[in-house]
Amino acid sequence: MILKGTVIWTPELGRVEVREGAYLVADGETVRGVFDELPADCVGQPVADYGDALVIPAFTDAHVHAPQFLNAGIGMDEELLPWLNHHTFPLEARFADPAFADRAYRAFLNALWEAGTLRFCAFATVHAEATWHLMRLAEDAGFSGLVGKVNMDRNAPDELREDTVASLAQTEMLAQRSREELRRIGFIATPRFVPACTPELMEGLGRLVETYQLPVQSHVDENRSEVALVRELHPDAPSYAHVYDAFGLMPARRTVLAHAIWLTGPEVDLLREKHVLVAHSPQSNANLTSGIMPLRRWLDAGIACAVASDVAGGSDVALSRHVACAVRTSKLRQVACAEERAASVPEALYLATKAPGGFAGFSQPSGSFEPGYRCDALVIGDERTAELDALLARTPLERLEHFIYTGDDRAIRARYAGGTLMPRPF
Amino acid sequence: MILKGTVIWTPELGRVEVREGAYLVADGETVRGVFDELPADCVGQPVADYGDALVIPAFTDAHVHAPQFLNAGIGMDEELLPWLNHHTFPLEARFADPAFADRAYRAFLNALWEAGTLRFCAFATVHAEATWHLMRLAEDAGFSGLVGKVNMDRNAPDELREDTVASLAQTEMLAQRSREELRRIGFIATPRFVPACTPELMEGLGRLVETYQLPVQSHVDENRSEVALVRELHPDAPSYAHVYDAFGLMPARRTVLAHAIWLTGPEVDLLREKHVLVAHSPQSNANLTSGIMPLRRWLDAGIACAVASDVAGGSDVALSRHVACAVRTSKLRQVACAEERAASVPEALYLATKAPGGFAGFSQPSGSFEPGYRCDALVIGDERTAELDALLARTPLERLEHFIYTGDDRAIRARYAGGTLMPRPF
Repeated sequence: MILKGTVIWTPELGRVEVREGAYLVADGETVRGVFDELPADCVGQPVADYGDALVIPAFTDAHVHAPQFLNAGIGMDEELLPWLNHHTFPLEARFADPAFADRAYRAFLNALWEAGTLRFCAFATVHAEATWHLMRLAEDAGFSGLVGKVNMDRNAPDELREDTVASLAQTEMLAQRSREELRRIGFIATPRFVPACTPELMEGLGRLVETYQLPVQSHVDENRSEVALVRELHPDAPSYAHVYDAFGLMPARRTVLAHAIWLTGPEVDLLREKHVLVAHSPQSNANLTSGIMPLRRWLDAGIACAVASDVAGGSDVALSRHVACAVRTSKLRQVACAEERAASVPEALYLATKAPGGFAGFSQPSGSFEPGYRCDALVIGDERTAELDALLARTPLERLEHFIYTGDDRAIRARYAGGTLMPRPF
Repeated sequence: MILKGTVIWTPELGRVEVREGAYLVADGETVRGVFDELPADCVGQPVADYGDALVIPAFTDAHVHAPQFLNAGIGMDEELLPWLNHHTFPLEARFADPAFADRAYRAFLNALWEAGTLRFCAFATVHAEATWHLMRLAEDAGFSGLVGKVNMDRNAPDELREDTVASLAQTEMLAQRSREELRRIGFIATPRFVPACTPELMEGLGRLVETYQLPVQSHVDENRSEVALVRELHPDAPSYAHVYDAFGLMPARRTVLAHAIWLTGPEVDLLREKHVLVAHSPQSNANLTSGIMPLRRWLDAGIACAVASDVAGGSDVALSRHVACAVRTSKLRQVACAEERAASVPEALYLATKAPGGFAGFSQPSGSFEPGYRCDALVIGDERTAELDALLARTPLERLEHFIYTGDDRAIRARYAGGTLMPRPF
């Protein structure tokens, strides 16, 4: 694959590379590099020439609830715990029906594709069959990523509360089967969150994580009432995050924890030591009246962070919207505390591309155009704004910023997954 | 005009009316009412039947900078004062060129139309010719609203700093000419903000406001560095807002002031007494690191508020996005202070429809479907989500919320301005 355009990527937090009229070359699924001149062995090969359109890494969503896509932008006048009970759980219960799950997951994957999110860590539901169906659909459509069957055996409505033994058996079955049958979509252990998992369930999951060397995803310190509930349930644990660790659910470099707004000092140390990837979902955190995660403080403390949608706590699928939201909420933190310097657009873009794409739970990194990365790319070139771009002589970075703040799927001209042009899934 | 659909409107803050299978009837430009049965004299008249699509009042943007539309989503990594100098002023200077202004304002009006904003209070630039052109274009396209030539004669770059006498003469010319030649677009006095206007200019503008009974729009208490600058320039004034009042620039019921984040107690009293409409632009206030206006506190204090885009401090034109943003930022205030109860979606929708549409500076109210209101309406029915709406049996209010949070111009099937189907302007 050879793409020509204005190639932009963020090799590290705060650094952005811009190469106009450059060639992005992939060997098979993997990036060889970005070149100002076509390498000798590529001369004569077909080049997809996108003129001065932007070529950027595709987005990776480090935290998204696939079934909840259907509830995006619904029930937002409630806080986390009532919202779960009134909106989220009733919807998730419907995924016991395979036909419903099929329609819902096809719609979800189409929406991800539209938004340019070609890799993800997704929560499914407790239903093994529907979860497997999502994994199969995503694999066949060309996405890469991780999908987890949710585990929950307490504090859940009857129709979603699992038998502990059955929950573990189904989890193990999916871990095995996905390893045998899938290549790009992996399985990730997914205890919903501490309030919904008994110690027995967490202990059993911890054993599976060890046995199969699984990655893990869950939630931590999202909402103050949730934190209080965890303290009630586990009065002897030093903190919410320590509960996961105590049960073997925080494997080093293979753990994603969403939200992390109310971390205590010892939790900050724990997450840094375990190289946990914190999925920061500022839009969701506002929607559910949770708060603003102190992004700059966690970054300065050495915690790895990513910007994620948390659909349907987040109402937008498109990570560009969440990048803009992360910049905005970081500015609101700065208003309250000048030391918490706001995030810039290039910083936040890194947090939605290389930071999550490089999560070690994936078999190959994505989200950058460095050699060895999976070649997942978007071509950004909005015909609707091309005239104004020219009138104003916008720079490539201004065009990128304009896309982040105001663009939508209509501005994405092409999507490449693993070096291949990716068609609409369904 | 007779529209049939699921008619929804917000007659007062926090109250929402939903009438399924109802008829919205207008006599000429004006709403007669919403009826469950077609009134006798309407039987046999053509009905635009939109099935179960939503019919809601069109949006009114109480604060938008028309020239800055071209900079939406550009330069957002800077705060207010440097952003003005590096991005806003250089762009506005180009409106000295009528050909540039023509292209820019056509693009702006197309964008408003797409977003369903059919009425607005807009800042233009200092240029009288380009301002008049915007007024003419907007009138001919079918919008209603107010447009102001910006006045600024200090703290501005050379190419935008006006001669005081000339600035006043051009303002008076536009006030007269618009009254003679336009019907739906009025002129509004538009001192940019206190830092950019000498006392002589403000005094002269105050006289014009009195003579022509003009409405007034400006900015107040947006950013702490701006507030400090005003205190330096007017050390004897009791507050920033009192400067406007002292110069006759706060006529009762005819004044729109944007932002009002950092109001002092006496300013709250002044704005309430003068029935000032506060344009609340939470997205802009985050983008420019200004802060979060305490919406609930100002509402509880009896201040009239509206949700506004403040393009290009705000990066989205669509007021639906700002409605969602106002709800989110009010939730973030609630996290910090439980007494500041968050705004609900119906409350915030009222703030983007009836509250600004009913501003007394307009010749006829809009933004509600009560008798006597100008009949500005949107038909919301997204074919892309219709299948999911049916699958989930979404209620009308859920479909409305879904549009507010996730919809865009593709979800707006039709726009009616003054009882007439409004085509794309250009």
